[in-house]
Amino acid sequence: MASDDDRSAEERLIARYFRPLATSPGAFGLGDDAAAVAPPPGCDLVLTTDGVIAGVHFFADDPAGDVARKVLRMNLSDLAAKGARPVGFLLSVALPAATDEAWVAAFAAGLGEDVKHYGCPLLGGDTDHTPGPLSVSIAAFGAVPHGKMVRRSTAKTGDSVVVTGTIGDAALGVRIRRDESLAKRWHLPDAMSAHLRQRYLLPEPRHALAEAVLHHASAAMDVSDGLAGDLAKLCRASGVAAEIDAVRVPLSDAARAALAAEPALIETILTGGDDYEIVLTLAPEKLAVLRAAAQAAGIAVTEIGRVMAGQGTRFLRDGKALSFAQPSYSHF
Amino acid sequence: MASDDDRSAEERLIARYFRPLATSPGAFGLGDDAAAVAPPPGCDLVLTTDGVIAGVHFFADDPAGDVARKVLRMNLSDLAAKGARPVGFLLSVALPAATDEAWVAAFAAGLGEDVKHYGCPLLGGDTDHTPGPLSVSIAAFGAVPHGKMVRRSTAKTGDSVVVTGTIGDAALGVRIRRDESLAKRWHLPDAMSAHLRQRYLLPEPRHALAEAVLHHASAAMDVSDGLAGDLAKLCRASGVAAEIDAVRVPLSDAARAALAAEPALIETILTGGDDYEIVLTLAPEKLAVLRAAAQAAGIAVTEIGRVMAGQGTRFLRDGKALSFAQPSYSHF
Repeated sequence: MASDDDRSAEERLIARYFRPLATSPGAFGLGDDAAAVAPPPGCDLVLTTDGVIAGVHFFADDPAGDVARKVLRMNLSDLAAKGARPVGFLLSVALPAATDEAWVAAFAAGLGEDVKHYGCPLLGGDTDHTPGPLSVSIAAFGAVPHGKMVRRSTAKTGDSVVVTGTIGDAALGVRIRRDESLAKRWHLPDAMSAHLRQRYLLPEPRHALAEAVLHHASAAMDVSDGLAGDLAKLCRASGVAAEIDAVRVPLSDAARAALAAEPALIETILTGGDDYEIVLTLAPEKLAVLRAAAQAAGIAVTEIGRVMAGQGTRFLRDGKALSFAQPSYSHF
Repeated sequence: MASDDDRSAEERLIARYFRPLATSPGAFGLGDDAAAVAPPPGCDLVLTTDGVIAGVHFFADDPAGDVARKVLRMNLSDLAAKGARPVGFLLSVALPAATDEAWVAAFAAGLGEDVKHYGCPLLGGDTDHTPGPLSVSIAAFGAVPHGKMVRRSTAKTGDSVVVTGTIGDAALGVRIRRDESLAKRWHLPDAMSAHLRQRYLLPEPRHALAEAVLHHASAAMDVSDGLAGDLAKLCRASGVAAEIDAVRVPLSDAARAALAAEPALIETILTGGDDYEIVLTLAPEKLAVLRAAAQAAGIAVTEIGRVMAGQGTRFLRDGKALSFAQPSYSHF
């Protein structure tokens, strides 16, 4: 009664598009109910989960491959900020019934590129049809030496505050994606507007800096809900305060141009979401070795302020503290 | 600028309702971006993920606590069938904006009962608002001795086929849940109708049998998409056939009564989903020790047939093979 021809539509989709991404022996070719993974000897598994919903975290007409890569990279960004290197991930996808196979094929192809690029194989998953919007959730696993996961709660008074890459691009990019006329209002050439939109579409997780974070940071987290809000979380968890020089927060040329045209954008830049950079604290004497590691990895790192006793985070400009209407971005 | 009062609505919900469920030190009180877990020495982590969507896998007006327990138990059922004992889980919840705090409180309270009962702490999670139906996805982790996860693909010719508990209750229960008049048509007393509905509402994962499965089964999987379809998957993965005596498939009194009233329900019983029992194969000489372990655990086990060379699974009744319109249930 049951033969290979009796496989369900779900089984066929998985075999065709997702099995090639399951390159770890512990994934059993996606042919079992579960995966089995042993962390490298002496290591803990770091576990994190993050997901996206069409219309909330991405646009329904974003390319399927980029949606896949975005949600995987959101999770890889968390692993990198914890000093962990990728081990693999579980994928849950809820597809509207109208989703065609070409969308699934493009989704899997994009995901496959990043599986290879980041060395993070698919270990298993779950697919369903949904009457709601398309949504994707990933649970990702990384490895760190036992007990060494870099925490939020271990920043120390006197530490430097450092951030990777540039801040605010994605928050500006999503505004342009919603309203193209903003690019004109902000006097942005096409290349700059495209840069900001791309930064929203596809994060660049700082995995190449994970080992340096592991060895040198006193505390770290990824910046996904806005620098101001995430740094506030880190400070609260650590029982410290921080004073940030707003002028030193690293901006792309595009963000700088937009800010010059509309100075109030400083709030969008500092509190908007989706940066997927790392904010970390470390002893000032370790700055040089972090900078060397970052240069070798091709990732910019910028010292933006200092950890202090007390509570609260202050962003100073011209000697005055900026105040924000909504300090932390939340999809919730 | 940032103090405890600046915590987002999401952070407050998590701290209030979910932090008490994060009893493992590696969950860091849900106060970090990730959890860190080391499997017990000599063990692999078994990873699985399964989720539910309102209107697809449960009814939107099911009690919130039961929704929480159902999705956790679906994952625990997978772990048990793989011979793994629970280590913890990650929780992703997408809530419609109209969800009130009382729902979240009841959801967390139900989840907390099972966290305690099954010794499976919350390790982390992700909450979002969704314009779609409420959905919950869990990634669960278990431990098995290294290399010993019980597979689907290792059934052997001559093995006995065994199933836990009773089959078909949930598939009948969901039909009654959708159409109360069926209980009358099937001549079911209230208690029997309630039993079937309860079996749909809340699975009973066979975790107490996990160790016996680990030590004695040649192959196993949980029965979630219907016994016929899931056994077919196991046989395909193992490259074997199976012959099942349909009359020996264990039924509850309620299912037996419904079947007597409407013999065509045999298809619903054998192919319907949501049993969350375990189907396993083992050498016939191990049946006695499995039965002893099952009795000690208070779980019924029933030998229903035999693994044979060839391919296909046949359910025989009165010497004839049953044929099903749709051999495997799929939410997809």
